[in-house]
Amino acid sequence: MEKKKISIIGAASISSAFIMKALARHKNAALAHACSSSQAGKGVSEYHTILTGLVDNVFEEYDRDTVINDSDIIFITRQHGEFVDDTAGIVHAAKSTGTKVIDLSADFRLKDGSLYDKWYGFTHGHADLLEEAVYGLTELNKDKIRSAKLLANPGCYPTCAILALAPAIKEGLAGESIVINALSGVSGAGVRPSAKNVAMRASENIFPYKVGGVHPHTAEIEQGLKELGASPKVTFVPHVAPFKYGIIETIYVKLAKDTTENALYDIYSDFYNDCRFVNVLEPGTLPEVKDVVGTNFANIGLKIDPRTNTLIIIGCIDNIMKGAAGQAVQNMNVMCGFDEGEGLI
Amino acid sequence: MEKKKISIIGAASISSAFIMKALARHKNAALAHACSSSQAGKGVSEYHTILTGLVDNVFEEYDRDTVINDSDIIFITRQHGEFVDDTAGIVHAAKSTGTKVIDLSADFRLKDGSLYDKWYGFTHGHADLLEEAVYGLTELNKDKIRSAKLLANPGCYPTCAILALAPAIKEGLAGESIVINALSGVSGAGVRPSAKNVAMRASENIFPYKVGGVHPHTAEIEQGLKELGASPKVTFVPHVAPFKYGIIETIYVKLAKDTTENALYDIYSDFYNDCRFVNVLEPGTLPEVKDVVGTNFANIGLKIDPRTNTLIIIGCIDNIMKGAAGQAVQNMNVMCGFDEGEGLI
Amino acid sequence: MEKKKISIIGAASISSAFIMKALARHKNAALAHACSSSQAGKGVSEYHTILTGLVDNVFEEYDRDTVINDSDIIFITRQHGEFVDDTAGIVHAAKSTGTKVIDLSADFRLKDGSLYDKWYGFTHGHADLLEEAVYGLTELNKDKIRSAKLLANPGCYPTCAILALAPAIKEGLAGESIVINALSGVSGAGVRPSAKNVAMRASENIFPYKVGGVHPHTAEIEQGLKELGASPKVTFVPHVAPFKYGIIETIYVKLAKDTTENALYDIYSDFYNDCRFVNVLEPGTLPEVKDVVGTNFANIGLKIDPRTNTLIIIGCIDNIMKGAAGQAVQNMNVMCGFDEGEGLI
Amino acid sequence: MEKKKISIIGAASISSAFIMKALARHKNAALAHACSSSQAGKGVSEYHTILTGLVDNVFEEYDRDTVINDSDIIFITRQHGEFVDDTAGIVHAAKSTGTKVIDLSADFRLKDGSLYDKWYGFTHGHADLLEEAVYGLTELNKDKIRSAKLLANPGCYPTCAILALAPAIKEGLAGESIVINALSGVSGAGVRPSAKNVAMRASENIFPYKVGGVHPHTAEIEQGLKELGASPKVTFVPHVAPFKYGIIETIYVKLAKDTTENALYDIYSDFYNDCRFVNVLEPGTLPEVKDVVGTNFANIGLKIDPRTNTLIIIGCIDNIMKGAAGQAVQNMNVMCGFDEGEGLI
Repeated sequence: MEKKKISIIGAASISSAFIMKALARHKNAALAHACSSSQAGKGVSEYHTILTGLVDNVFEEYDRDTVINDSDIIFITRQHGEFVDDTAGIVHAAKSTGTKVIDLSADFRLKDGSLYDKWYGFTHGHADLLEEAVYGLTELNKDKIRSAKLLANPGCYPTCAILALAPAIKEGLAGESIVINALSGVSGAGVRPSAKNVAMRASENIFPYKVGGVHPHTAEIEQGLKELGASPKVTFVPHVAPFKYGIIETIYVKLAKDTTENALYDIYSDFYNDCRFVNVLEPGTLPEVKDVVGTNFANIGLKIDPRTNTLIIIGCIDNIMKGAAGQAVQNMNVMCGFDEGEGLI
Repeated sequence: MEKKKISIIGAASISSAFIMKALARHKNAALAHACSSSQAGKGVSEYHTILTGLVDNVFEEYDRDTVINDSDIIFITRQHGEFVDDTAGIVHAAKSTGTKVIDLSADFRLKDGSLYDKWYGFTHGHADLLEEAVYGLTELNKDKIRSAKLLANPGCYPTCAILALAPAIKEGLAGESIVINALSGVSGAGVRPSAKNVAMRASENIFPYKVGGVHPHTAEIEQGLKELGASPKVTFVPHVAPFKYGIIETIYVKLAKDTTENALYDIYSDFYNDCRFVNVLEPGTLPEVKDVVGTNFANIGLKIDPRTNTLIIIGCIDNIMKGAAGQAVQNMNVMCGFDEGEGLI
Repeated sequence: MEKKKISIIGAASISSAFIMKALARHKNAALAHACSSSQAGKGVSEYHTILTGLVDNVFEEYDRDTVINDSDIIFITRQHGEFVDDTAGIVHAAKSTGTKVIDLSADFRLKDGSLYDKWYGFTHGHADLLEEAVYGLTELNKDKIRSAKLLANPGCYPTCAILALAPAIKEGLAGESIVINALSGVSGAGVRPSAKNVAMRASENIFPYKVGGVHPHTAEIEQGLKELGASPKVTFVPHVAPFKYGIIETIYVKLAKDTTENALYDIYSDFYNDCRFVNVLEPGTLPEVKDVVGTNFANIGLKIDPRTNTLIIIGCIDNIMKGAAGQAVQNMNVMCGFDEGEGLI
Repeated sequence: MEKKKISIIGAASISSAFIMKALARHKNAALAHACSSSQAGKGVSEYHTILTGLVDNVFEEYDRDTVINDSDIIFITRQHGEFVDDTAGIVHAAKSTGTKVIDLSADFRLKDGSLYDKWYGFTHGHADLLEEAVYGLTELNKDKIRSAKLLANPGCYPTCAILALAPAIKEGLAGESIVINALSGVSGAGVRPSAKNVAMRASENIFPYKVGGVHPHTAEIEQGLKELGASPKVTFVPHVAPFKYGIIETIYVKLAKDTTENALYDIYSDFYNDCRFVNVLEPGTLPEVKDVVGTNFANIGLKIDPRTNTLIIIGCIDNIMKGAAGQAVQNMNVMCGFDEGEGLI
């Protein structure tokens, strides 16, 4: 079987590097075009030095027609907001070639277009595509993903939060108040030097940011929970932690019903029974960031504080893998009918 | 003025190292005896190599009479539980010499002796001393500390939590549900190699431990809040973070009354007006672990999530300084009538 | 094609974890027996939690006959010295079944048995196997590796040093004095808590160890250089660096002949022309540890200091991958006729 | 006694932060003016958040006359090269007021002005001040420092290298070839975000830079060794290491005479007998970066490799303390007749 042709727009991002790393070991798909305006002409592995020996491509100027006509799958990893119209143009044009689009930005994740004004500060002009787009939390949406033309790849924090909460929400265990204390590795702040990712701030430190209900992932989490049948408002506080890759979310849920840790384990295990990338840990065991680093796994642990009737859920993912590039490749695998883990194990 | 004579029992601990470091620069106090059974005969700075060039003492075998007769202040940094009777004996004997005792263990922190059975797994036989002991959260208890003979130096997590919550509790702002998400540097797990502090686990990782209402600091926090006039049950989840020194607590409080971030800032600033080691950060600024590392400061920031009516308090301390050795020296300064910051700036 | 059956003796080591990780994605080989006396009965991924979701095996008691009769390849990752006789027994017995042995310990790396007395402190009683064993520096020894029955997998420091020096030695560029300044991540000190790998020592620190010509890898490096036609004595100083995985060696060689960085690049590129796991970096570019972490690559950079006529070679590998488990799997691939990179990309 | 008035030009640098931290605990000196064009008007501790609670000053626009007329000591921590003329102007004007200047840049460290063309790329127009300036390696130059009007504070790498080599050079032990393998924490790359100090590069990594005899500290080291009576060319390779503060230099010296580790220890101990900030470690003990972090100490260890007749010297300092701000304050103490350790212990 010939390999599917894969292109990336915004290929200088960290997520793109990890998509290309997965493609380097993928038996059914291969990198065709790595587009980056800022790095065009440079060798991909000269810039993403972690790809030395793995990727021989050279960054190209982005040309919409070339990319559409010469790709089966297009990954887009551009900044939110600025390129919505261009992405919409790609999606429309790609229908004629059968090319599918996987967008890692937030541009098509929220169903209610008005939320973009509120949370992202721009007006979204493509309600049709918001409706059409399939939200790519693979484990919860696999059927729709199979036939998606435009896949909105989830945010890192929402991936972890929704996976960690879904079975409890479905089971009606969650009361109204949900607190999500989240810590992300510094790769979440990108590779371009900034006040948020300079080593003298990032190391031997933890710092909160966007505190007080202002991080836009709040809206994405609440949308995800709503689709599961609940509509709690969540208090979500993200922090930057002193490691490169990984997210840990410690989630506090007032229990709406009595339950036990064993019962919870059964509920979660059943729910994720067919999901090779979700590990529900046995009672007494809790997840640690290090175990998911470099993998596409989400590890989930469950604990009850009987003194305060609170369910404490710990979820860990690699923010760049299951939280971005890994899940994007997983979705590609589902969309193309490949083995779901190809390139990701 | 001659320097006060200071002795330490359990001088091989990390906290002891930092007490000795503070004494090395202290103008009114000097190390007399560094007692450690495990290291007796060895040079203090051979073992605590961070003290090379600062401390010339040699570890001695602990001898109760010598220590009492030849010290003005005795710091004790031994494991909880095992040495309660011996410490009680020291306290009683020390009354005749006027020697004062600062105990960094948890052995005399809780007023209700029955809590030791529940949280620490041993029966406490010295109710008289539990009553007599002064809980040494310096900022909240300074008057009593001045005349204390037995000072129970607070735990690291409770120091941060109680300082972060005190003004809000006093003001009646805190509702019933309080969540404390806490992360501590690996120094909290000691220097003796263990499964919790081995580098392959501690680095590039965060992991929760004692989840589900079982960490004994929960009791100490609740006792502290009760003395401030509230009696909430707290949900407290500690984690180990990949840095050496520091604690960050992100505290979630359902607001019982309407307020604003500016009003909160005023309340907190007033409350800590005379406290040189508490920095209340201006609205819009939040604390970071790195800024308190190596210092005796507690930095506190305040934020409201209006969507969920939740007050989010961020508190940072150095777990070994304000959370242990630093506060112990601060208390010594108060007990001896020295400048409160001597040796700590 | 049925997958080859692979067993591991000493499966609780870090190297074993990474062999199993490679096997989890290997299309021609699968784990049969994971033997560990200390962990027998426990789930492999309960102990090596980084393998959660990847490996379902349970640790078994080591039984020599079972392992030999039910394996095509046996990896051994036991401590040097203690198990030489047992390994020798395996090798002899395995000849009848066609089973091949890859030993990751130092037990069969040195050709001159008397060196074991000097460097490892034990007398080696299997001169026949020392002669028979093939030293598995894949790039330098591929032909012999193909037919090896007992493969002595190289040490981490020697792998990096010999790869970095080989082309220069072959070309007669190296004078008599070679200095190798080496830094290894803390994974080199194992997972069992010890004074060398406790986080309070390992983080925010670098410390030298075994300084003064006493690290046994010195002998292995010198043997490797001798086989390339030179016989310099090397000054080798290892240090522990504050990262988990990786080695960087900065090697100082007095130039015996005039040359240029461009000429060196050509020499090195030619030498490693067919070697997919060695990246010779272009003049002006130097390797960094982070780029090889988690990979089987060796990255090499070259620089001349004209003021002192010194060739400075920088080599980077992942100590557990190319320096141990990765190279072991690479050797397995060569020994079994698989694609050399299978399971390693 | 009234406190001396201290001003800083370039007060937004890391070094300035640590000078101000030392002043906050200094009993004979106090900060008068913190000048920074980029931060003028901002609170010092708003910018240098590690100074929260310690420094109340506000950054001021730099005004030469104000600074000279209102200061006893002026620290200057500006970029090399750009401000030489201005600094020269300050020095000349300051003679009339008796104000002394401590320059932490490289602008007045080299005696031979032509070296500035070669190593720093600018032509130095102030030969008179190059001659007048006192090179402030405190331990080697104390007499001259006492009466210095312009003190050139040494570079971080040279401080460590010269202290580590001085006694061996003096004793005639060093042959011609000296290799200095140096690693510095990321604070050496400043706080302003750059490609060299971004966390995704700085963490879990070590990388060499300015390899091949091009780092200007090479000239400073060679000048220092020459003044001690030797004139070796040194091969110096600096690297960035994944910690915030600290330098470790592993120095390789071909021995010119026979000696022993015990004899070396005696030579070094004698040489640094009166130096409270140099710790010569006993034979068998080697320095580690962590032990000097946050201190003004230089720790030195000695080892001989008898196989190659090489003396291996390990030196550790905190690059910002003994390597910059700490030594600057130490020099101020000497220049003002204060206790040499005031503010530094």
